[in-house]
Amino acid sequence: MAATPLNSIAIVGAGALGTYYGARLAQLGKAVHFLLRSDYDHVRAHGLTIESRDGDFSLGPDQIHVHRDPATVGPVDLVLIALKATANDQYEPLVRPLLGDHTSVLTLQNGLGNEERLAELFGAERVLGGLAFVCINRVAPGHVRHTGYGFVKLGEFAGTGGTPGDSPRARAVSEMFNAAKLPCSVLPDLRLGRWEKLVWNVPFNGLGAALDLTTDQLLATTAGEELVAGLMREVVATAAAIGVQLPGDIVRKQIDRTRPMGAYLSSMQIDRRARRPLELEAILGAPLKVAQDSGLDTPLLRHLVRLVGAVNVNT
Amino acid sequence: MAATPLNSIAIVGAGALGTYYGARLAQLGKAVHFLLRSDYDHVRAHGLTIESRDGDFSLGPDQIHVHRDPATVGPVDLVLIALKATANDQYEPLVRPLLGDHTSVLTLQNGLGNEERLAELFGAERVLGGLAFVCINRVAPGHVRHTGYGFVKLGEFAGTGGTPGDSPRARAVSEMFNAAKLPCSVLPDLRLGRWEKLVWNVPFNGLGAALDLTTDQLLATTAGEELVAGLMREVVATAAAIGVQLPGDIVRKQIDRTRPMGAYLSSMQIDRRARRPLELEAILGAPLKVAQDSGLDTPLLRHLVRLVGAVNVNT
Repeated sequence: MAATPLNSIAIVGAGALGTYYGARLAQLGKAVHFLLRSDYDHVRAHGLTIESRDGDFSLGPDQIHVHRDPATVGPVDLVLIALKATANDQYEPLVRPLLGDHTSVLTLQNGLGNEERLAELFGAERVLGGLAFVCINRVAPGHVRHTGYGFVKLGEFAGTGGTPGDSPRARAVSEMFNAAKLPCSVLPDLRLGRWEKLVWNVPFNGLGAALDLTTDQLLATTAGEELVAGLMREVVATAAAIGVQLPGDIVRKQIDRTRPMGAYLSSMQIDRRARRPLELEAILGAPLKVAQDSGLDTPLLRHLVRLVGAVNVNT
Repeated sequence: MAATPLNSIAIVGAGALGTYYGARLAQLGKAVHFLLRSDYDHVRAHGLTIESRDGDFSLGPDQIHVHRDPATVGPVDLVLIALKATANDQYEPLVRPLLGDHTSVLTLQNGLGNEERLAELFGAERVLGGLAFVCINRVAPGHVRHTGYGFVKLGEFAGTGGTPGDSPRARAVSEMFNAAKLPCSVLPDLRLGRWEKLVWNVPFNGLGAALDLTTDQLLATTAGEELVAGLMREVVATAAAIGVQLPGDIVRKQIDRTRPMGAYLSSMQIDRRARRPLELEAILGAPLKVAQDSGLDTPLLRHLVRLVGAVNVNT
């Protein structure tokens, strides 16, 4: 798809990540519309406060647009989705009112199946997918803290107007992100990027949540490292079964790059501790279904889905 | 083996359980010798304080015998072992000095393999095994609180002088326990009792520690209940493979009797939270080895050993 104007942007799912990315784009001068619920009154009165290792800043209420209802936003150029994947049943009511003829939809959500669902609902030609590698926490209403990383990799879902992954539109969004101090690159193949991230997410989110262990604890025992590596190998085999060839040394490299992260809590471990619903389906269930549909047995992943199912309880 | 005198008793492993059982036997008038380390000075000066739903009581320093070293105890009639199974490498130095010609050794430890190891070291004819169903916590040095249950089932390991399980000696020990307000019965078959308890211990201790979930949380989801029941079925099949036939309805009954326990923390979950070494080998590793030696595949148990291995880390 050809590059389209990117002047108005709606943020669907203004948690820590959506707030930070939206604030950076507003700082750049874009008309950014935040959909808010519990923080609506606070942000409307006080705006946003961003602490970031790339520079702190604030945005007054006059520099952003806040809404309770997507109907008051209306059609925008770009919808940026940063919902928890557990809230994907809200795609239709939240996103539909934001769509005009040329609206693009970029999901930065975790896991597998988000682009597919958006394409079903709103048309594959609208959809871009992105991977966010970033550490951000919400400190208070309208106040987020960006502590590490920050880069985004994005690409076309269906590849209309170009190869899957790259396109003039993907490059335009990437350039806008870079201009907004959000380091970004275009993925030559979105699926490759998604599966590469799953190789990390499946063991460290899944086991992290099931066992309530940080990344360094998971790698501190032979048993833990074997489970991590075994799950990674199953994800690599699943990707290969649908034609996505990951690098041969990816398991070793992912483990090696995780060690220096120290006592890192994956997002799913954080959600477990906060007794929030877990992104079980997007991060674990969907990859398992791909394996099963391909006739591949992945016993560790199959078992992990049950373990995380058992901890996905709010008693 | 014929009944022997039971006048002098040594407690090896005077944690909550050993302290409570020893105190009850001292209250009965037996000469009870407690082997202590960190609590030695306190108990020597102040004795023991027992809060119990079967009646509170105290024992002054003159009513018990406290020791740092088993050599100062010397041979006794009965050695009662209540060590964590993770300390079984201390059997030789702790128990050997307590043995005379007619000394009996009763282990009340969790899991599988304790009697076997004691028999290897000290002779099978000395060994009795028991299962303690009791809720006891240590409140402070020399101070324990008994909050629930309390019964013991015990029997002969090798069955010298009678059938395995029952014997005049087993009955004599059982009578002494009953006289000391420790409800006790003799198992017609010690192995049956051990495996029956493993049916409960494997899932609730194993998953409880691995997932850090209480018994009610483990039964709160379909995924959790299926894991519990699946593990129980594997334990039943393992027992059957070595000729121990458990009741056909044991899985359903064990789950049903666990529900009313509420938010119960298994001992292994408590040990995990306290960052103590886990009784992985006795409760999970030894049953898995029995299955493997019998040519039986128990994938849930096999996987559970790795999961608990991964959380058995003190970082």
